[in-house]
Amino acid sequence: MRVEIVAIGTELLLGQIADTNSQWLGEQLAAHGIDSHFHQHVGDNHARMVAALRVALSRADAVITCGGLGPTQDDITRSAIAEVMGVSLQRDERLALVIREMFERRGRTMPDNNLLQADVPDGAQPIDQVRGTAPGLICPVGDQVIYAVPGVPYEMSEMFHRAILPDIIARERAQGRQAVIVSRVLRTWGASESGLAEALAPLVNDLEGSHEVTLAFLASGIEGIKVRLTARGREENHALEILNREEPRVREAIEAAFGDVIFGTDDETMEHALAHELIARSLTLAVAESVTGGLVSSRLVNVPGASTWYRGAIVSYASEVKFNVLKVSEGPVVSGRAVEEMAEGVRQLLGADIGLAISGVAGPESQDGEAPGTVFVGISVEGVVHHQRFSLPGDRPRVRQYSSISALQALRQTLRQDV
Amino acid sequence: MRVEIVAIGTELLLGQIADTNSQWLGEQLAAHGIDSHFHQHVGDNHARMVAALRVALSRADAVITCGGLGPTQDDITRSAIAEVMGVSLQRDERLALVIREMFERRGRTMPDNNLLQADVPDGAQPIDQVRGTAPGLICPVGDQVIYAVPGVPYEMSEMFHRAILPDIIARERAQGRQAVIVSRVLRTWGASESGLAEALAPLVNDLEGSHEVTLAFLASGIEGIKVRLTARGREENHALEILNREEPRVREAIEAAFGDVIFGTDDETMEHALAHELIARSLTLAVAESVTGGLVSSRLVNVPGASTWYRGAIVSYASEVKFNVLKVSEGPVVSGRAVEEMAEGVRQLLGADIGLAISGVAGPESQDGEAPGTVFVGISVEGVVHHQRFSLPGDRPRVRQYSSISALQALRQTLRQDV
Repeated sequence: MRVEIVAIGTELLLGQIADTNSQWLGEQLAAHGIDSHFHQHVGDNHARMVAALRVALSRADAVITCGGLGPTQDDITRSAIAEVMGVSLQRDERLALVIREMFERRGRTMPDNNLLQADVPDGAQPIDQVRGTAPGLICPVGDQVIYAVPGVPYEMSEMFHRAILPDIIARERAQGRQAVIVSRVLRTWGASESGLAEALAPLVNDLEGSHEVTLAFLASGIEGIKVRLTARGREENHALEILNREEPRVREAIEAAFGDVIFGTDDETMEHALAHELIARSLTLAVAESVTGGLVSSRLVNVPGASTWYRGAIVSYASEVKFNVLKVSEGPVVSGRAVEEMAEGVRQLLGADIGLAISGVAGPESQDGEAPGTVFVGISVEGVVHHQRFSLPGDRPRVRQYSSISALQALRQTLRQDV
Repeated sequence: MRVEIVAIGTELLLGQIADTNSQWLGEQLAAHGIDSHFHQHVGDNHARMVAALRVALSRADAVITCGGLGPTQDDITRSAIAEVMGVSLQRDERLALVIREMFERRGRTMPDNNLLQADVPDGAQPIDQVRGTAPGLICPVGDQVIYAVPGVPYEMSEMFHRAILPDIIARERAQGRQAVIVSRVLRTWGASESGLAEALAPLVNDLEGSHEVTLAFLASGIEGIKVRLTARGREENHALEILNREEPRVREAIEAAFGDVIFGTDDETMEHALAHELIARSLTLAVAESVTGGLVSSRLVNVPGASTWYRGAIVSYASEVKFNVLKVSEGPVVSGRAVEEMAEGVRQLLGADIGLAISGVAGPESQDGEAPGTVFVGISVEGVVHHQRFSLPGDRPRVRQYSSISALQALRQTLRQDV
């Protein structure tokens, strides 16, 4: 069954609020194996709302509208749906009573226009309001259906689980169809999207033949490239079985082509992945940053419990701070020698087992004869130092972000190889 | 002119990423007085993309598509647009060369399928890629037009300002559209949205009578509350006149109610505003961070030319680093005394005129008897120290973000009052 989401509200078109409802509903529908091929945003305008609903019904079996069920003039979803159904609105006295009682319970007098929320298109079935004053609606349109829920996220989600999802699943069962979709994301840093696509092309073709698993690549900018496996099964355990069977093949193909670039799964960030490696070896970390200006450190402290393994950082933005505080020897500060001395210097100054240092050229001008985007990462493991050199794209903020995740990945890989 | 936004990507339908592009584009179009009545989300599917584009062209004069311009099999926006235009794709050798050179500059070999990004629908005009490898497209469809930009937000926004907005405005002029809309944003930190709305209520009513200027309040989370003035005039100079006439009245009303909370205008960030104050007084700055873990420092280095006034930072995450490196006296580290000693300690260690220090409780647990959200900011101006105490809302990441901008605002206000 194909479900189209229509999010209603001029504030969405004006960009004054983010449409988190469509994202949440899309996630829920996908998790239950229900297709959603299109979403729309439309403003609080009767004619355009009717037009959007007709477009949606022309390409989906069911429509979920969010918003426009409030008590004010611009809450006109009810009348737009009634026009699409070709019926009129009827006052539902039972709903009206519930709304009145809600206000009484809160010791407030009800403004009359709140009764508009008790108007229901003829033939529609109300979804009782539990969390707010606005009831939802289940509106049959021939053998199709329009579900209407309020735009308030926690009212919307409650009605979706209580009334809409069961109705959709009942309709799917009636059509003898129901599948479950589960997905897993492998997070990579150090491989290009096109490179991954090429390395995985044979596997992609192979998997697409099976119609059980699909692979997608999500370029996530400063967080690298995500490889998403999505499996479809009769029920959840079956879909998970398929995922667990195929994930290792995808990992192997990626690691065969690019080495240890997969740093995390699903929501695991690079700093969380690095924290695991440090904790597993009970090592403490100190950081010296130049070009990144504190970004690496600010990512590390986002890991809950960082205080057990993280000592702190020196942001040596001025060269004299490198020389006087970190005891770096005079000379070019964008160099392998400089980052190795910075790493060892901060390790000793802050009393840590591991020192990580980043120095580079954010641009637009070159520095120490190095082009913008050139970044050196130095690592000291209990005094044993080495460095890596990177050439990174983008403007100043991007170079800093890429430098940060590259440095964290470099240390993560070092720990996994050598320590 | 009516512009429909079509955000492309199966990950949007599955709710795996939020559609921030439509929100941003909607805000930009509105700020320039361009109508946008509908948005759509569609997946990486040729037939459905063509259908979505045809729906959009049936109800708008122009369409902006975001996404699907990458180098992989599921990046098919180019071919979908070509079908809607009724033309074929042609390889643009100049674009191909640019892509090749980008990979060479980064010292990487280009996977062949990256050249797909150089394919252009016959009769379309490419928008050169400045920040990524994917060019954008301006695709005439009769007297309508489809603009295609990458889904990566910072590539999308750059192409919108450089190529798409000017093209839309030129088309509006060609249609002899008279009114020009210009807007200006006053950026505040330290006043609540409802407080601002209340303080400005009389002015809002007054202005709305004039039909020349409208005021909008945009709660921008960690960047504070934006107050946007939008003026409509016969042409740009006239609209700017109106803005310049009304802006001082809005400023006065805000400052009368909340003091020096307006830190910037339009895109001016808090760190840029602070840099102006430091440069005007030729003062240098050093930072000591605990709870913020490097966030303050990483914001400061985003200001071009920061090296002339910024020395660096000590992230004293472990208490011993506060005691041993910053010479803070033993005792509670979340206190006014501690941040004053941190500020003076880092000022001396890094050799700066001004020291700024932040220590606090990100939560969820209390520390030193202080509740989560309690943050102390210490300031040393050439050895003269003082501190402020803040109680901030939100979870750990939000407390860190609020702490950072609060500390920068506190220093900015201190410099403007005392130095």
